[in-house]
Amino acid sequence: MKLKQSITVQQIANLIKAEVFGDGETVISGINEIHKVVSGDLSFVDHPKYYETCIQSAAAAVLINAKVPSPKPLIISEDPIRDYNFLVKYFQPEIFAYQQARESNNIHPTATIYPGVHLSQNSSVGENSIIYPGVVIYDHVHIGKNVVIHANTVIGSDAFYFNKRHNGFLKLRSSGSVYIEEAVEIGSACTIDRGVSGKTIIGQGTKLDNQVHVGHGVEIGKHCLIAAQVGIAGKTIIKDGVTLWGQVGVNKDITIGENAVVLAQSGIAKSLEGGQSYFGSPALPAKEQMRILGYTKRLPEIWKRLIQKK
Amino acid sequence: MKLKQSITVQQIANLIKAEVFGDGETVISGINEIHKVVSGDLSFVDHPKYYETCIQSAAAAVLINAKVPSPKPLIISEDPIRDYNFLVKYFQPEIFAYQQARESNNIHPTATIYPGVHLSQNSSVGENSIIYPGVVIYDHVHIGKNVVIHANTVIGSDAFYFNKRHNGFLKLRSSGSVYIEEAVEIGSACTIDRGVSGKTIIGQGTKLDNQVHVGHGVEIGKHCLIAAQVGIAGKTIIKDGVTLWGQVGVNKDITIGENAVVLAQSGIAKSLEGGQSYFGSPALPAKEQMRILGYTKRLPEIWKRLIQKK
Amino acid sequence: MKLKQSITVQQIANLIKAEVFGDGETVISGINEIHKVVSGDLSFVDHPKYYETCIQSAAAAVLINAKVPSPKPLIISEDPIRDYNFLVKYFQPEIFAYQQARESNNIHPTATIYPGVHLSQNSSVGENSIIYPGVVIYDHVHIGKNVVIHANTVIGSDAFYFNKRHNGFLKLRSSGSVYIEEAVEIGSACTIDRGVSGKTIIGQGTKLDNQVHVGHGVEIGKHCLIAAQVGIAGKTIIKDGVTLWGQVGVNKDITIGENAVVLAQSGIAKSLEGGQSYFGSPALPAKEQMRILGYTKRLPEIWKRLIQKK
Repeated sequence: MKLKQSITVQQIANLIKAEVFGDGETVISGINEIHKVVSGDLSFVDHPKYYETCIQSAAAAVLINAKVPSPKPLIISEDPIRDYNFLVKYFQPEIFAYQQARESNNIHPTATIYPGVHLSQNSSVGENSIIYPGVVIYDHVHIGKNVVIHANTVIGSDAFYFNKRHNGFLKLRSSGSVYIEEAVEIGSACTIDRGVSGKTIIGQGTKLDNQVHVGHGVEIGKHCLIAAQVGIAGKTIIKDGVTLWGQVGVNKDITIGENAVVLAQSGIAKSLEGGQSYFGSPALPAKEQMRILGYTKRLPEIWKRLIQKK
Repeated sequence: MKLKQSITVQQIANLIKAEVFGDGETVISGINEIHKVVSGDLSFVDHPKYYETCIQSAAAAVLINAKVPSPKPLIISEDPIRDYNFLVKYFQPEIFAYQQARESNNIHPTATIYPGVHLSQNSSVGENSIIYPGVVIYDHVHIGKNVVIHANTVIGSDAFYFNKRHNGFLKLRSSGSVYIEEAVEIGSACTIDRGVSGKTIIGQGTKLDNQVHVGHGVEIGKHCLIAAQVGIAGKTIIKDGVTLWGQVGVNKDITIGENAVVLAQSGIAKSLEGGQSYFGSPALPAKEQMRILGYTKRLPEIWKRLIQKK
Repeated sequence: MKLKQSITVQQIANLIKAEVFGDGETVISGINEIHKVVSGDLSFVDHPKYYETCIQSAAAAVLINAKVPSPKPLIISEDPIRDYNFLVKYFQPEIFAYQQARESNNIHPTATIYPGVHLSQNSSVGENSIIYPGVVIYDHVHIGKNVVIHANTVIGSDAFYFNKRHNGFLKLRSSGSVYIEEAVEIGSACTIDRGVSGKTIIGQGTKLDNQVHVGHGVEIGKHCLIAAQVGIAGKTIIKDGVTLWGQVGVNKDITIGENAVVLAQSGIAKSLEGGQSYFGSPALPAKEQMRILGYTKRLPEIWKRLIQKK
């Protein structure tokens, strides 16, 4: 998230009653997760494994739970995630104020919004777009022109992102957004989460069938086809021209290359090269998988031959 | 789709500024995809692979992108799909005018329609049927008697049917319908698409659990059980008495025979004979699949035996 | 279900015009399925395979389709399921009377209920809980404090429980309830069915992602993580601390032990021990499955070696 006005590291530290280690006058213009950080941001980290990545990132300052050597200022917190949540809530209070969609200033006059649509005051709908009944659009969702969203789809709900604690889970507060680009069509009963601090993006011309789940911070490229009941976990990148057939599952934090085709029910655990077809759970190149499946059917014969050779 | 009144081939050609090849006075009474064509219909085709099938079909005339020998009149178009879309929109303008369901003339007085249901003026609900809150019913959906539809289900949304073009996808306009027969029960958050030009049918007495997806033009027979999170792709036929357990995926354009049972999470790529059980993705007869799975577990031993024989 | 006031076995028999075999003055205080039966209940059975279990259970009396030796009174019915449905409807008429949620006495004043929520008058929402637009809450759903339920989720719809008859399916009437405990978060477009006669429970601190399906009578423990598009079939028990990753399917009537982790797309057919990871459909311990998958990839080589040894 971008702050509405800049603030110093010391002022942020004062808000959470924390100590600054380094230059407290450094100016902060945004707050972001490490993988979304841009110059001027405060980022945060609570695990030694990621200290170095965070300190070496583009962040202007780091909210951290240890005093470690750093060229940039640190804000020392005993619980950086708790304090991140506090800051996000402080700078971006929830204003999920629903309204009858037709009354909103953020809806282009040529857009068609059917009855029963719920839309946050912070969100917008572009030229000629059509939103069918029962669609719910949370905060910070931006829908481009010529978009169609079918009934009962939900866009912008919270990231499924929980931090395990000794007494349960601490939820990482979602402050991100969703961008639905021009000429996208989204089926019925889909769910598209907003980013934790960054953007979830559905690229121009991409088409989603019914009951597709898109996790927080996922970026889908242009002109992709995503069939029914596909699920894509958080922060994964789907490049342009990708086809995912029905019920495919895609792991978090991976990349699927341009024009890849993933056959139905496949499970994608690792990043895939573009330009070819994949199948299976876990997926392999489709030809290889089909070849292996052919041999699998011969297993009873393989066993028999093996035994007979004794 | 059936036209409200008949029209000649020449009149249709005039609407899309196209040339007629053959008898322009031939009378057209409907427009349909090739697999749904009936006598009196105009059908359409844009790929040489399907020219012959289309010309030999029951169609009265064909909208096509080449002058080929034909016993029936052709309307020559440089883009038959674009012109099909134009014609469907011309003859069947979208009148998805929602209303408070209780005020509709198309709802039988004994039906129970809970608040928050959205129903197109073109659709109907039969005797004693119950529709729970949040259900959205698009155009041309006909719900029989003694039907129960649970909350937030969507019936009649558009087919997921896109034609790839050099600059993205062209959507084939949906003008079809949905028929839900007597004594069907449909769970919560299901999605049932209408046909492109034909009907999607859920047969008498069939029961669907929650989050089931039924693609465009699918025909499900009588007394089937479809468990939660099953997905059935477009134009597939499920015969009477079939059971599909949870999370099964079924390919498009195939047939599942009477009384077949498909075990959970199976993926059905090809048509299946009725009267037996199937399992796996891709599915095999369940007994065969279980036998193979048994040998799969012996693979480490198979490898060891093979190596030891060197 | 618990009866509002107790009644004798003979009085129940009179309601369904059935004969009593044994002491008609025995007092009945509830009606329950065999696996949920408590002292004072009437239970029911229509298959000889389960007669003995039912007669030996804690039930005070049994609705049954045969005169068999029994230390407890029997109500003899030619169709115990039909008569169970009659009794449940008689003692608990459907009062699914929706109202604007904010007007309800059953909602704690500190709870946030967004517009477009439908809530039965029989259900309740606790302190500080948040219900997003489009959520539908059927009868007998009890939501604890600090719960978050995202948009278009459905809680309390009917069990998918049908009894096959020669002329179709007879639905077992749902009279159960749902309990959502403190600090649970439920994603968008989830579906959680109520029990047939018992409770569906989501335990304290448990988090569900989007499009999760939870069948009737399922009991999920505390501090579990259930990722998107998971489906859990009826009456299964998930113990504390379990993690189910995306698109996992879980069979009915089984138990998953404490702190088990089930990897994405796995299918769980049988009960699992806690404290370890599982993968595959059907699932095996993850290490074993990965080892087998490794050998599966060598199948072409195995075949080649086997052939060469001829």
